[in-house]
Amino acid sequence: MVKKIVIVGGGITGISVLRNLFTRKGEVEEEMELTLIKRENSGWVSTCGLPFALRGWYEIKKTEINDPQFFLDQGVDFKTETEVARLNLEDNKVTLKTGDVISYDYLVIATGRKPSVPDAVAETELEGVYTFNNEVDAVKIEAAMNAEGAKNGFVRGRGIIGLQAAVAFSTKGLKTTVLGGPPSLLPSGLDPDMGDMVKEWLEQQGIRLLLERKEIVAVKGDGGRVKSVVIGTGGNEEEIPADVVVIARGMNPNVALAQDAGVEIGEARGIVTDSAMHVKKGRGYLNNVYSLGDCTEVVDGITYRPRLSQLASTAVVQAKVVADNIFSDISGQPGAYSACEPCLSPVAADIGGLLVGSLGVTSEAASRAGIKIISGKATKSTKARYFPGSKSITAKLIFDAYTEKLIGAQVVSEATVAERINELELAIRAGMTAKEICNIERSYDPSLALLKDVTIDAAEGALGRGEAVY
Amino acid sequence: MVKKIVIVGGGITGISVLRNLFTRKGEVEEEMELTLIKRENSGWVSTCGLPFALRGWYEIKKTEINDPQFFLDQGVDFKTETEVARLNLEDNKVTLKTGDVISYDYLVIATGRKPSVPDAVAETELEGVYTFNNEVDAVKIEAAMNAEGAKNGFVRGRGIIGLQAAVAFSTKGLKTTVLGGPPSLLPSGLDPDMGDMVKEWLEQQGIRLLLERKEIVAVKGDGGRVKSVVIGTGGNEEEIPADVVVIARGMNPNVALAQDAGVEIGEARGIVTDSAMHVKKGRGYLNNVYSLGDCTEVVDGITYRPRLSQLASTAVVQAKVVADNIFSDISGQPGAYSACEPCLSPVAADIGGLLVGSLGVTSEAASRAGIKIISGKATKSTKARYFPGSKSITAKLIFDAYTEKLIGAQVVSEATVAERINELELAIRAGMTAKEICNIERSYDPSLALLKDVTIDAAEGALGRGEAVY
Repeated sequence: MVKKIVIVGGGITGISVLRNLFTRKGEVEEEMELTLIKRENSGWVSTCGLPFALRGWYEIKKTEINDPQFFLDQGVDFKTETEVARLNLEDNKVTLKTGDVISYDYLVIATGRKPSVPDAVAETELEGVYTFNNEVDAVKIEAAMNAEGAKNGFVRGRGIIGLQAAVAFSTKGLKTTVLGGPPSLLPSGLDPDMGDMVKEWLEQQGIRLLLERKEIVAVKGDGGRVKSVVIGTGGNEEEIPADVVVIARGMNPNVALAQDAGVEIGEARGIVTDSAMHVKKGRGYLNNVYSLGDCTEVVDGITYRPRLSQLASTAVVQAKVVADNIFSDISGQPGAYSACEPCLSPVAADIGGLLVGSLGVTSEAASRAGIKIISGKATKSTKARYFPGSKSITAKLIFDAYTEKLIGAQVVSEATVAERINELELAIRAGMTAKEICNIERSYDPSLALLKDVTIDAAEGALGRGEAVY
Repeated sequence: MVKKIVIVGGGITGISVLRNLFTRKGEVEEEMELTLIKRENSGWVSTCGLPFALRGWYEIKKTEINDPQFFLDQGVDFKTETEVARLNLEDNKVTLKTGDVISYDYLVIATGRKPSVPDAVAETELEGVYTFNNEVDAVKIEAAMNAEGAKNGFVRGRGIIGLQAAVAFSTKGLKTTVLGGPPSLLPSGLDPDMGDMVKEWLEQQGIRLLLERKEIVAVKGDGGRVKSVVIGTGGNEEEIPADVVVIARGMNPNVALAQDAGVEIGEARGIVTDSAMHVKKGRGYLNNVYSLGDCTEVVDGITYRPRLSQLASTAVVQAKVVADNIFSDISGQPGAYSACEPCLSPVAADIGGLLVGSLGVTSEAASRAGIKIISGKATKSTKARYFPGSKSITAKLIFDAYTEKLIGAQVVSEATVAERINELELAIRAGMTAKEICNIERSYDPSLALLKDVTIDAAEGALGRGEAVY
């Protein structure tokens, strides 16, 4: 019997589900019919690669890893430039804006996110003011940034996307200003003391950082193009020249379709699911309707409260779980079933050459959740002190004050941040205590590591031990 | 009351105990008197840094991080060029070769290892034939390697030290031959398929690798200096020109002093201890005598059988445990007590620019221990495929066939090997299964990592899943 699977949304999330289903097709006898519906005219685009394209590392089109034809050639009904009007979960049907109706056995909601935009920006019709959510945005930003006479760049937002856009502007020679709230950069992952290292790094590159409780209150232009933004309110306004403006002050889950269909929306404003990623409707979860990715809430791995994760890395894990469970259901093998673990959201990012990583809770997030912490911070080199080519690395570790288990980590360096975050993720999942981190075996070679790692110093610091020994 | 602690051995192991004790001195009321006895005329030397000095990265003397005076200045009775004649564990006394007797409250045995040498080499008096165990050896090797007319280098041994010496020879322009046993390089950490990647790398650098069951049967010289070695036996001999020869075919635990004192030596020929590192004597463990480092057996973290580890990284963990336990004892705080976990021996090394890492069991070690395995191997890039500057990385993961838990890992790449080994160590300690490795969250940034990591492909391979998806 043919099983029809319809995926709504063609970002990395929807594409990941598609690819997982596709490569496992051979494992079930039933025939599977795969449909993916997306608004954009593109295949599989690595959105995370776009800021580097703006910096000039490669062309934007390089981030399209597979075009739509690639999926069509594999027998997927890959519908681009197509919008969904309505989901009918009672009758297992999707209605397109064209009026066409597609029926499904399994529905996957991967509708992603949409940028939050200040009112003054929402009202403007000037060219040069863009959000930064996909490749279409990137093309527009690149054109504005490279336009003749463009001298000033402005970014509203202090998260990874905003800062990476600012670095791109600065690299291209634009005088660049960033407006974010107080007190520090990247607050969802970094404590202020760690965020200040990023601030200092960007300031050294000539980027102006305004970390103030201000908003864009007006956008001014000339000949249909933006020329400046006005920030602040009342008598406390400042006009800042801007030939290109990127709005990256946050992303809201895109839940309108799901909400209209009666799916439950949670306290973090995302779609509510169980750990198998089935959506909630009324008093139960729907066995044949999944939601995942940026539009969906996760359970925090430390506080066990719902929140958003909005990372590609979170989405790919969820995509495997969704594919496993659709397969489990079709094949009748309950053993193939998967569930998502509570989420630690490991993050690593290159901010203009400085690598920044985090996972678990920040000091502030712990405080909000009523968790008493102890923390330690250390700065060391990445290689033996006599070894050439060493970089400085700073790690901050946050432990539960009572159990002394690791619950959060932040790392800033020019090297090996992503790998450390992945390691520390396992340390959290393993329930490791500060003392266990001090006493764990670690590989050692003077060209690759220190005999006594920076994380050990940080753990010792949290335990109130003395200064670095080695 | 003054507590006297005597450490026998001044390699990284003894120095680590000393430094741990020293930095924690303030934590106890009792006065501590620290004595360290070492044969060499040096302070704290990073032995692992010596091969890179031979390659020309820095001068050999740079690897002496602190000289003896540094320790003397801190009030340590730091005895260099001093040999111990006898340990008297009944009377808590150490007798030096000079006849002097030192009494102790706590004794720490850190007598290290001594190179295993073929008979033909032991009998030779020719200059230019050296083992490679410390800075004194390094100075001699460097002189022979740089001597006028030196054209040929020969290494007996296929472990990390031997291969790093070979790379140094080759870098300095010597025609270099390595003799090791069959079938492959670095067999204690790498399966033959992974070892062959190292072989290919070294062959591309012009190093000749003889992986045959042969031995050095004669050393020939001229004017007191080595000129060639003869390998093989009977009619199957080959004479290979050699102006400098390094013997690195293995290290034996240096246990003579302990053995003479009645301490138990185990099946792996090392000193037997409990998990607190107390030595065994008769039917019990001595509460005030510790042994650790290369002379001491560890318990394997997978097979739970005794073996040797002989890594600086193992020794530093043991040193913390020994220091904790001496402190616990002196202070009367049982809560300060520590124990060593069974050992996974994470290793990372730079072999001429190729980074090699391993931990846990190899396929062969698992087979010897009667463990049935499944394994998976994958090769991917270290960054997104469209990203410049990416390197190839190969990972092999070994799982217990029944529990599907990770029990061994091997990684070869030009980048990020040490960090991955550290991560995989935590995965083993956390008891992670192949499926859990497939579904773990990982940080992602196209400049730093792949969305689907090579270890996930390897784990999928072990589970019999299809080809790489991303």
